[in-house]
Amino acid sequence: MGDFAFDAATRLNGDGPNFGAELPGEWGAELSVNGGFMLALLTQAMGRLAPFPDPIVASGLYLRPGAPGPAEIRTELIRAGRTTAFTQASLWRNGKEAVRATAAFTDLETAGDPSWPVFTGATAPALPPPEECVLMAPGTVRGISIADRFEYRYTEAPGWFSGKPSGNPAAEFYMRFRDGREPDMASLPLFVDAAAPAVLEVGVGRVTTIELTVHLRARPAPGWLSCRVHTRFLSDGYHEEDFEAWDSAGTLVAQSRQLALIVR
Amino acid sequence: MGDFAFDAATRLNGDGPNFGAELPGEWGAELSVNGGFMLALLTQAMGRLAPFPDPIVASGLYLRPGAPGPAEIRTELIRAGRTTAFTQASLWRNGKEAVRATAAFTDLETAGDPSWPVFTGATAPALPPPEECVLMAPGTVRGISIADRFEYRYTEAPGWFSGKPSGNPAAEFYMRFRDGREPDMASLPLFVDAAAPAVLEVGVGRVTTIELTVHLRARPAPGWLSCRVHTRFLSDGYHEEDFEAWDSAGTLVAQSRQLALIVR
Repeated sequence: MGDFAFDAATRLNGDGPNFGAELPGEWGAELSVNGGFMLALLTQAMGRLAPFPDPIVASGLYLRPGAPGPAEIRTELIRAGRTTAFTQASLWRNGKEAVRATAAFTDLETAGDPSWPVFTGATAPALPPPEECVLMAPGTVRGISIADRFEYRYTEAPGWFSGKPSGNPAAEFYMRFRDGREPDMASLPLFVDAAAPAVLEVGVGRVTTIELTVHLRARPAPGWLSCRVHTRFLSDGYHEEDFEAWDSAGTLVAQSRQLALIVR
Repeated sequence: MGDFAFDAATRLNGDGPNFGAELPGEWGAELSVNGGFMLALLTQAMGRLAPFPDPIVASGLYLRPGAPGPAEIRTELIRAGRTTAFTQASLWRNGKEAVRATAAFTDLETAGDPSWPVFTGATAPALPPPEECVLMAPGTVRGISIADRFEYRYTEAPGWFSGKPSGNPAAEFYMRFRDGREPDMASLPLFVDAAAPAVLEVGVGRVTTIELTVHLRARPAPGWLSCRVHTRFLSDGYHEEDFEAWDSAGTLVAQSRQLALIVR
């Protein structure tokens, strides 16, 4: 696992319930670590306590920006039921709490009941093959180190990228780790927060996340994730951002929503 | 306030940070108290600690069903920043924790920045006037006491209600408290979970909420709430439910998503 950047960056020290970690400078924007990265880190720590493998929902409340450097993670197993376990974790940096998170874990292979009806009211983004899409080259988004950890492929370069926002805060695109690591349940909380915010397309520059909740609906198949992001309600700087990630087999694997605020 | 059923049912005893409360038998389904009701109760308790009036986001993790009877609420002010405060609360019943919740509070009159662009990518449900809609009469949904606390008005009676589910897990309808109490920030976390689950329209009987997050985007104007609910991804019994509530002035006031599971 340690051969890939994500696994090295989310390494936990200790046996729990408290862990040490090193918040990396390479997974964020300017001086703060990405919110999805920190939620993935905390979800991994909570997973050490939970008796089930799959985090089906994880939520983070962002109290302060997380600066790179040594951090402490405190975890709690709130309840382990027959099929679902509930956990909490907090991330501390320089003696101050930066993120508080909760999660529920289950075993998706056995917890669900396949006899229930299946309903899918949406389809995966209709994108041409990745090789026909536009690659965002590493280093092209100045100051946003996390953008260099992924490959993003769009049907055409986003409007914000060329200084011509489209006015429509929505996008569909492919995404994968640049170093070849495959997506999994552990990395999905990061993926859903690691692309350009949809509101860049209405001319907004920087946003800060207040709360992020991600539903992890299935273990992703290897390969590209097809992603869809949009914001529908923006007022006084507050806005929600909804994100879907579909795996290469056409299954919805993650669905997230965050409440965010435009930075003045 | 105490003249209305919701205010009487959410009365807190004590000065905090711990409170006593009485979980009511009239705000639930069969033997368990409604999840949105419990989140509203906890959000009210967290509001006692927060130095800002408006809960902009509240999340609940449902550990156990909440049975009617005496309960204890424990609250924590995690952080009070310059414009946003973060809180946590837990609900205890018979010595066992039933719900863990977090919330962020601000002052919506001063925290936002009206100079940012406004974007609205959706409109309120297009419903005929309430008096032209079908009223769901009290007592018509057997065993679901919470349905008697509200008036729901649909353009036509829902399919599930007459035993003929439409197959489409979506609905638009009006909603208000039956006793004339107006909607407000305190009651919105309840409203978003107090209508019939969208999945009743695919033939599902009972669901249980694992996690519920509600964004409270504006203080509602008096009058009916226009609501929209839908589920898009249902597999192995797991599903999300998205809910929007719009006030009588046409403003989106609440947007929620829950992860729920069909009860076997």
